[in-house]
Amino acid sequence: MSNPLRVTVWNEFRHERRGPEIAAVYPDGIHNAIASHLRTEGMLVRTATLDEPEHGLTDDVLADSDVLIWWGHMAHGDVRDEIVDRVYARVLDGMGLIALHSAHFSKIFKKLMGTSCDLKWREAGEKERIWVIEPGHPIAQGLGEYIEIPHCEMYGERFDIPDPDTLVFVSWFQGGEVFRSGCCYHRNKGKVFYFRPGHESLPIFRHPDVLRVIANAVRWAAPVSGPGLQFGHHPEPLEPLPG
Amino acid sequence: MSNPLRVTVWNEFRHERRGPEIAAVYPDGIHNAIASHLRTEGMLVRTATLDEPEHGLTDDVLADSDVLIWWGHMAHGDVRDEIVDRVYARVLDGMGLIALHSAHFSKIFKKLMGTSCDLKWREAGEKERIWVIEPGHPIAQGLGEYIEIPHCEMYGERFDIPDPDTLVFVSWFQGGEVFRSGCCYHRNKGKVFYFRPGHESLPIFRHPDVLRVIANAVRWAAPVSGPGLQFGHHPEPLEPLPG
Amino acid sequence: MSNPLRVTVWNEFRHERRGPEIAAVYPDGIHNAIASHLRTEGMLVRTATLDEPEHGLTDDVLADSDVLIWWGHMAHGDVRDEIVDRVYARVLDGMGLIALHSAHFSKIFKKLMGTSCDLKWREAGEKERIWVIEPGHPIAQGLGEYIEIPHCEMYGERFDIPDPDTLVFVSWFQGGEVFRSGCCYHRNKGKVFYFRPGHESLPIFRHPDVLRVIANAVRWAAPVSGPGLQFGHHPEPLEPLPG
Amino acid sequence: MSNPLRVTVWNEFRHERRGPEIAAVYPDGIHNAIASHLRTEGMLVRTATLDEPEHGLTDDVLADSDVLIWWGHMAHGDVRDEIVDRVYARVLDGMGLIALHSAHFSKIFKKLMGTSCDLKWREAGEKERIWVIEPGHPIAQGLGEYIEIPHCEMYGERFDIPDPDTLVFVSWFQGGEVFRSGCCYHRNKGKVFYFRPGHESLPIFRHPDVLRVIANAVRWAAPVSGPGLQFGHHPEPLEPLPG
Repeated sequence: MSNPLRVTVWNEFRHERRGPEIAAVYPDGIHNAIASHLRTEGMLVRTATLDEPEHGLTDDVLADSDVLIWWGHMAHGDVRDEIVDRVYARVLDGMGLIALHSAHFSKIFKKLMGTSCDLKWREAGEKERIWVIEPGHPIAQGLGEYIEIPHCEMYGERFDIPDPDTLVFVSWFQGGEVFRSGCCYHRNKGKVFYFRPGHESLPIFRHPDVLRVIANAVRWAAPVSGPGLQFGHHPEPLEPLPG
Repeated sequence: MSNPLRVTVWNEFRHERRGPEIAAVYPDGIHNAIASHLRTEGMLVRTATLDEPEHGLTDDVLADSDVLIWWGHMAHGDVRDEIVDRVYARVLDGMGLIALHSAHFSKIFKKLMGTSCDLKWREAGEKERIWVIEPGHPIAQGLGEYIEIPHCEMYGERFDIPDPDTLVFVSWFQGGEVFRSGCCYHRNKGKVFYFRPGHESLPIFRHPDVLRVIANAVRWAAPVSGPGLQFGHHPEPLEPLPG
Repeated sequence: MSNPLRVTVWNEFRHERRGPEIAAVYPDGIHNAIASHLRTEGMLVRTATLDEPEHGLTDDVLADSDVLIWWGHMAHGDVRDEIVDRVYARVLDGMGLIALHSAHFSKIFKKLMGTSCDLKWREAGEKERIWVIEPGHPIAQGLGEYIEIPHCEMYGERFDIPDPDTLVFVSWFQGGEVFRSGCCYHRNKGKVFYFRPGHESLPIFRHPDVLRVIANAVRWAAPVSGPGLQFGHHPEPLEPLPG
Repeated sequence: MSNPLRVTVWNEFRHERRGPEIAAVYPDGIHNAIASHLRTEGMLVRTATLDEPEHGLTDDVLADSDVLIWWGHMAHGDVRDEIVDRVYARVLDGMGLIALHSAHFSKIFKKLMGTSCDLKWREAGEKERIWVIEPGHPIAQGLGEYIEIPHCEMYGERFDIPDPDTLVFVSWFQGGEVFRSGCCYHRNKGKVFYFRPGHESLPIFRHPDVLRVIANAVRWAAPVSGPGLQFGHHPEPLEPLPG
């Protein structure tokens, strides 16, 4: 694990440039709101956005990233497949990936899950209460029993994801739904965390506990210098075979 | 669940037509060896192969299949992407999928797993012992503590799959490796089972316990008439919201 | 699997004999309300209660039970430890166990979980909505997207159980909590299902979907004739050792 | 998380005092072999043994332990139930527990698992190869693809444990068996790791990779300052209930 942790925060960054009410909430973009916080936690943070060359995700940037945080919403289809394949390969090789909110429908998250990642949704500004389900998990570090979000966009079950390796959070919504809000997965050497809260026009990424979870998740998802894996043909057995 | 269960056995069916030593083992193809057995279990079985139109997997065939069994080896790349997408959609909608042996590298299995599905392999005719790890699982019905395969192709860990929802079998190999040989997954409404044994030139699909596992897996993977899922926009909350 | 399935419904059966308002809801006891329904599903059902000799759970009764359904509430401490040990041994040997509602605090459920099984609770007659989280699971057979219970006792997270092997249901409560309401576990050859709904003074065990889930769970939890397990000393290796 | 980590290594410590051949391998006891290594990793380590008052596990010692390492073999029955209950309560409250080798049959491990924890075993000095199954897990930090133990006591499946939350290692044995050798569990706020290798008369706790795994596991199992949990009666709903 590198020290300090190297984080890249990726943002579609179109909402903020098109809608004044979003720009008012995140004048420098959602990516910079998140990046600023992670820097206060001692992390080495860069940002990247959709409209940069190669979406800002060159081989060098990925090789230099322990964890990639992904925010996308309205332009998932504009992310080029070869960049998705590049990020996918880097995750399988150990880079952590944190998918936030509407990134449930990003190409990279769907490719890593193997499912549609579809869900129910509603924009009614209702209340969300994110309950901690696994209190001994490092992503729950420093939290109370729940996080309360006064006004949110609702995401409801059935959420079409594989059963998480660890389910850390489950959300309650005022309008009657529930949702698996914090989901951990291993994908070869890489770790993936999906975290539900967030919205382009609500100040959710300024909520101290939401930021705390993201920082905890970066530490959890950071690569481990585990074994080098030798896939493929191994004609020589490790043990002698009989005649 | 339909009664009797409707099963489609899909086979690449190229080995058997090119190599006489394979034709000698499976004169009618691997698909017919499996299909014959499943018919003795009272199932309604059809077969489909790569070189048929639409690989034999038309919308009608898939709609009429409770479970699809997949065997492929040398021609994974020849399976057309639109047929893979069609099978994928049908699995998420409830059809069971049983991936046998080298189908670990099929497009459909990799797409459903979200990982590379890579592994170690060796052809040395060594012994395999498939241990039952979850003895109360319906796929273990009728087995002893292990299945012994006198001569097999080795597959070894690290097998790059997601942690199975249930791990039913683990294999021991004479040459020194282990392998997660029987792996269950939920993928939306569909169920997926990976089963390791099998080889194009060894009579593994005539082994009574291998056939028993396949039949058990068909019953386990058969669709359930669970809820119709309403994904997408739900503007009306189920509960009244204040103000 | 025996045919028809043999089910024993165990009830503490003290509430119903002491409180007239409970007797009004379940005049023959909760056990008979459940048993009557399961008989309509073709099962062979007996009942047993706390104040019978050996709590009605003799060796013969357990040996003759494929699945045991457990309801207890106010007298968990009166269940004798040797009967708990007997039930525990029978579960590990393959008998299914379905723990209903307040059975979360029964000796047998806590012993099988290895945790405190503690939770939050409140009796305010609020609404519960039980969402199906795993729509392809056989316990979800025949359900819609959720079950609505108009008036219930609330159970809230944190629920101190091990991460379920499969999480089938998550509940939403009007008062602001969530709960993992349908939880599957393997315990050696036996299968355990915890199902949350139920209350001694509310007619929840007359709700068609609640009864449907219990019947589905019986079928899921029924024993499999898997391998006989040979634990202990095996001085002879299966393979020859060098030297 | 305290810094440095506070570890207590518990040992039955009877073998070493009775058998000269064991004393020759571990002249200061297995506990001190492990403790010495963990001190080189910067941990604050104490030891405790069966024949001390309260088995060395007073309330103060447990309160001052982030992680407890447990070795027992021939005297599981001599561990007093009230001390087991005390350790159990402390694990549920957050202390990590690492159970080594024959500790699979300790009272504390069985109580936390909810199963018999039985297995197959053989003492033939055969070879074990411990394969890394989850290469991105922090317990695999610094390892190669497998650890080779030239001479070991065999433990074979079926191992009667609950399906691990994460399966990190699977062992291959020369005599023909396999075993789930590295198993992670959450138990309320505490984390439990079972690690198979070890024997009282073989120098396995001097193997660098075995010691590395134990140190990694201590870091993984260390407590998280997650939420304080408020179990029990909550008469006031978090949300207003209708009339």
